[in-house]
Amino acid sequence: MPKTSPVSVGLIGAGRIGSFHGETVARRLVDADLVAIADPAPDAAAKLAKNLEVDAAYTDIADLLAHPGLEAVIIATPARFHTNVLVQAAEAGKAIFCEKPMALTLDEADRATAAAKAAGVPLQVGFNRRWDQAFAEGRTAIDAGKIGTPQLIRSLTRDPGPFGADPEKIPLWTIFYETLIHDFDTLLWLNPGARPVEVYAAADALVRPDSRDKGFLDTAVVTIRFDNGSVAVAEANFSALYGYDIRGEVFGSAGMVTMGDVRRSSMTLFDANGVSNDTWRRDTDHFIHGYTAQLASFVRSVRGEGVAHAPTGADARNALAIALACIDSVKTKSAVSMLS
Amino acid sequence: MPKTSPVSVGLIGAGRIGSFHGETVARRLVDADLVAIADPAPDAAAKLAKNLEVDAAYTDIADLLAHPGLEAVIIATPARFHTNVLVQAAEAGKAIFCEKPMALTLDEADRATAAAKAAGVPLQVGFNRRWDQAFAEGRTAIDAGKIGTPQLIRSLTRDPGPFGADPEKIPLWTIFYETLIHDFDTLLWLNPGARPVEVYAAADALVRPDSRDKGFLDTAVVTIRFDNGSVAVAEANFSALYGYDIRGEVFGSAGMVTMGDVRRSSMTLFDANGVSNDTWRRDTDHFIHGYTAQLASFVRSVRGEGVAHAPTGADARNALAIALACIDSVKTKSAVSMLS
Amino acid sequence: MPKTSPVSVGLIGAGRIGSFHGETVARRLVDADLVAIADPAPDAAAKLAKNLEVDAAYTDIADLLAHPGLEAVIIATPARFHTNVLVQAAEAGKAIFCEKPMALTLDEADRATAAAKAAGVPLQVGFNRRWDQAFAEGRTAIDAGKIGTPQLIRSLTRDPGPFGADPEKIPLWTIFYETLIHDFDTLLWLNPGARPVEVYAAADALVRPDSRDKGFLDTAVVTIRFDNGSVAVAEANFSALYGYDIRGEVFGSAGMVTMGDVRRSSMTLFDANGVSNDTWRRDTDHFIHGYTAQLASFVRSVRGEGVAHAPTGADARNALAIALACIDSVKTKSAVSMLS
Amino acid sequence: MPKTSPVSVGLIGAGRIGSFHGETVARRLVDADLVAIADPAPDAAAKLAKNLEVDAAYTDIADLLAHPGLEAVIIATPARFHTNVLVQAAEAGKAIFCEKPMALTLDEADRATAAAKAAGVPLQVGFNRRWDQAFAEGRTAIDAGKIGTPQLIRSLTRDPGPFGADPEKIPLWTIFYETLIHDFDTLLWLNPGARPVEVYAAADALVRPDSRDKGFLDTAVVTIRFDNGSVAVAEANFSALYGYDIRGEVFGSAGMVTMGDVRRSSMTLFDANGVSNDTWRRDTDHFIHGYTAQLASFVRSVRGEGVAHAPTGADARNALAIALACIDSVKTKSAVSMLS
Repeated sequence: MPKTSPVSVGLIGAGRIGSFHGETVARRLVDADLVAIADPAPDAAAKLAKNLEVDAAYTDIADLLAHPGLEAVIIATPARFHTNVLVQAAEAGKAIFCEKPMALTLDEADRATAAAKAAGVPLQVGFNRRWDQAFAEGRTAIDAGKIGTPQLIRSLTRDPGPFGADPEKIPLWTIFYETLIHDFDTLLWLNPGARPVEVYAAADALVRPDSRDKGFLDTAVVTIRFDNGSVAVAEANFSALYGYDIRGEVFGSAGMVTMGDVRRSSMTLFDANGVSNDTWRRDTDHFIHGYTAQLASFVRSVRGEGVAHAPTGADARNALAIALACIDSVKTKSAVSMLS
Repeated sequence: MPKTSPVSVGLIGAGRIGSFHGETVARRLVDADLVAIADPAPDAAAKLAKNLEVDAAYTDIADLLAHPGLEAVIIATPARFHTNVLVQAAEAGKAIFCEKPMALTLDEADRATAAAKAAGVPLQVGFNRRWDQAFAEGRTAIDAGKIGTPQLIRSLTRDPGPFGADPEKIPLWTIFYETLIHDFDTLLWLNPGARPVEVYAAADALVRPDSRDKGFLDTAVVTIRFDNGSVAVAEANFSALYGYDIRGEVFGSAGMVTMGDVRRSSMTLFDANGVSNDTWRRDTDHFIHGYTAQLASFVRSVRGEGVAHAPTGADARNALAIALACIDSVKTKSAVSMLS
Repeated sequence: MPKTSPVSVGLIGAGRIGSFHGETVARRLVDADLVAIADPAPDAAAKLAKNLEVDAAYTDIADLLAHPGLEAVIIATPARFHTNVLVQAAEAGKAIFCEKPMALTLDEADRATAAAKAAGVPLQVGFNRRWDQAFAEGRTAIDAGKIGTPQLIRSLTRDPGPFGADPEKIPLWTIFYETLIHDFDTLLWLNPGARPVEVYAAADALVRPDSRDKGFLDTAVVTIRFDNGSVAVAEANFSALYGYDIRGEVFGSAGMVTMGDVRRSSMTLFDANGVSNDTWRRDTDHFIHGYTAQLASFVRSVRGEGVAHAPTGADARNALAIALACIDSVKTKSAVSMLS
Repeated sequence: MPKTSPVSVGLIGAGRIGSFHGETVARRLVDADLVAIADPAPDAAAKLAKNLEVDAAYTDIADLLAHPGLEAVIIATPARFHTNVLVQAAEAGKAIFCEKPMALTLDEADRATAAAKAAGVPLQVGFNRRWDQAFAEGRTAIDAGKIGTPQLIRSLTRDPGPFGADPEKIPLWTIFYETLIHDFDTLLWLNPGARPVEVYAAADALVRPDSRDKGFLDTAVVTIRFDNGSVAVAEANFSALYGYDIRGEVFGSAGMVTMGDVRRSSMTLFDANGVSNDTWRRDTDHFIHGYTAQLASFVRSVRGEGVAHAPTGADARNALAIALACIDSVKTKSAVSMLS
């Protein structure tokens, strides 16, 4: 009885999220094998490869792409390298899962999408929130017409605090390019068919006001008007002391759906201090099942199965366009039109 | 044993909320008597007076103000009359509870406050949300430092749908003057000491798009930047099919408080359709205890007792200033500075 | 215009709950006047009367019953005096609100009911849970058939801890006579028409095991089988460190309703410790609106208006019968039949 | 680089839960291979083997046990065969995961445990609730002393309705042997170190009263007294129209933990009917992560790693002892002592 053989996957980038994705492929997906890891940092790939029992570790991406039998890659490098690596992988004929943001300019986004298209390879972008059960159920309810036409939408990302990174090592505009890009995709995805027409962004360094004069931003509120009249608010902060808080809300002509809960589980403690719940402290805990479903869906794509809701290069471009409008809005201190 | 005698209260305006306030004084407050009602509409005051077993009904406010022994008035006329009636009552030496908005211009607001001050009478404005238990507990937690410094704030008002009013009979800018004014006060009150510096408002007729070209607005999202760096979002819609939805959220450097729930009570039904809760459908049901506490506090003011958190004329002016900035923002399609 | 005059109420018993009921009549009910207070303890009635601005204070119940114009009494003495006081009040022609338990034996219960009937006066018993909004909504859902036929029912009472009373001053079987009697009434009321057929009670001194050998009981679990096949569990404990916890659950052939929440309000705090809510710590806070509704309904009864769900002498007898069966079950360490 | 090779697992019993466990091994566990399936029903094993891409299918258990390289078995036959199959597998030297109940008599339980011990093979029993995140967190809180000493405990199982099985095909006492056995294990596990001393069970056919006279039971309430004074209630029903409802509650001297929620996710719908959540309708959906964790832990045991909280043969015996006492209690209509 011939068996379906697992998809051979290579990981590019052995940092925090790359390591986690590698672990997912190696430990949580039966129908995929992690066969090679590449990272330019000496030892990074080798160390992770040893942990995950992977045979091949490289410091050169080209070597990974040349790994025998490799069918697909997961791109988890720093964001500024995403497009080039993606194009390189596409040209090597590999199926591509690329972490967000896929690109930092619209031209790069177009180049990435074109490369995948030219190579005829699947391209999926890491908007993991679509794979979370609650968000997926929310979209299903919206598609079923249960809330009517969306009118007011909210998506927020609050990273768990205390914020301990060095603001100087964080690229400018990260809050838009890397954090809120999730919310922009979520807002677009939960407002099917609507196009943004105007963006107004208020952003500041409230967590680290000492870094404000260097352009660091850790807090932002973005208002987006869509061509169906709906108005969305995306919001982010880098230091939620209570945990990793991801929520969405879509209010429409017939009702509302809300999604997301920072509580870890239904386990509730009642004691002399009142009623309490533990919270999610890491995205990789909160969304472990969503992250796994995301890569499982990518594996199905590689096998040629259609996957509903897999974010495409076009989706990445649409979210990026809002991020770029936000940056423009912050620079000009005014609302920015997205028409034309 | 001499007893404290009840405060004698007159009601001006026998419409929906006036009738409800009258009923509160007559039926739910032991230490106040509703002694007179005035409404220019023939029979309106008389009919309500009969229902509430009040002896005196007038069509002329001056007559009500001359009612023997009258100590205080509740002003619940249409908003455009508030200031003039307030000044008239102050000049007659009556303690004043005035529904929001106290005025429609900053000059009127100043005139109202000055009149009350000149007459030496208490002046309380109808920002009832401050008296709701959850919002009051939220403010207490903020004052106790439990969330640190406010950074991201949200307040929303969604009136229960379906919207059945005639848009042509609703004054222009009502969503800012009469609906969101509650949220503006709430945001100011939950962000103690902060002053708004910039406002951006997106508003539209999404519930009744057929009335858009007449300037009718039923949906709005307002972003407010404060001088402590915090950013607030106020949001309103006139037709929440699921009920009367009032919520607040204050996120700060040390945590967050959330307030408000559209669910009626802890009674939860589990049946073949899943899990469900009934919702609040009217402000006067949802906030009956808050509305009662509000007038009880006013009665204490009349008796000369200090009342924490009672909204003053200055509070009314501060909320109005944001509403006016919103109108300006909608007209100019741009962010509006509130720094003079 | 003739006005409805307030009902003249006398309070018998100026202890904790009596004082609270007195305050409700004096301060929270417009259509009732607290005109007299009686308590045998020197100064108890006088002190409360002064606080509540009541003119008449007595140490002799007969004097209170002779107070001019008195229409109704609230009986809030220690439980063992309830029946005699009730009969005395009935014979004086006064409408009667009696705290639970109305009696400690079935004979006394019958005597009490007969006295009220003979005098033609209203008799309402203090099963306040029926007036709580969530429990009332639960009963409404059951009456509407939303859960089908009840099959599994739960009612619990957990008094706020830490338990600080002196076990030696608490009458034997108090947990059944005074605490669980609420749950027995609730179970009967939420299972309309069903009659208990068998009772099994497990009870112990877990909070104060040092008092176990004196017969003190602070924890109990009671199983009740009804003639419609349903099985109920009533449960009590004297020391819930997290607050005053009152809940109910009715599971039936078509669904379930649950009622009760120890959380104080929707105000929720999110901080470095996770998510938390404050809790109810006193019955008089948790059920203040229910307690008020209860006495408002009694006042309506006194005025001759019919009041749905007002607990009668028969209801008190039915709950007592279960309490007595529990005591028998504990004594015999076996299930006790309630079929005579 | 030598890799850890997957554990070779054989499945015995290709019914509903066996198929699901087989799928878990084949599709959700990277470090285990499903290598053979046995079921006496013609084609049952072959059909499942084809679906799961497993090469070997047998109708004879002995053949499966002789499968080359087989290291472990999952026993998911009808309950009455569990012990014999378990002993047979132990004698063949295979590691054993056995669905609950491990045995139907205490002698069989002892025989099963002894066989595994004699063979020196791991034995884990399918009490899956221990692997559910909320229940595991509850136990952790209890171990940390957060609720003090347990006093009142509750565990319930309500299978999703409508009940569609044929009561005549369900073995007698199934509600105790197969349903409540989960709750008995949960109660023992959440009350560490306590031993049951008395059991009282009320059971009936409320879902299918037409089958009552044949001894069918679909509803039960069990009271268990423990030697630490705590009292537990276990409760089951075969037809919860609102879904698959599994909950636990442990109240102690310092607080309480509650666990379990029939709501599917945080996605909440607000519409004209109020607020609602979808519910879990199948155990294999509700507990998919718990079921997976359970078998992952078994695989670790097979590899010789210690696994905390894995239910042993002794645990199975302890839960069974309560089930047997329940049957005795129902037969004798009285409380049954577990001492002796």
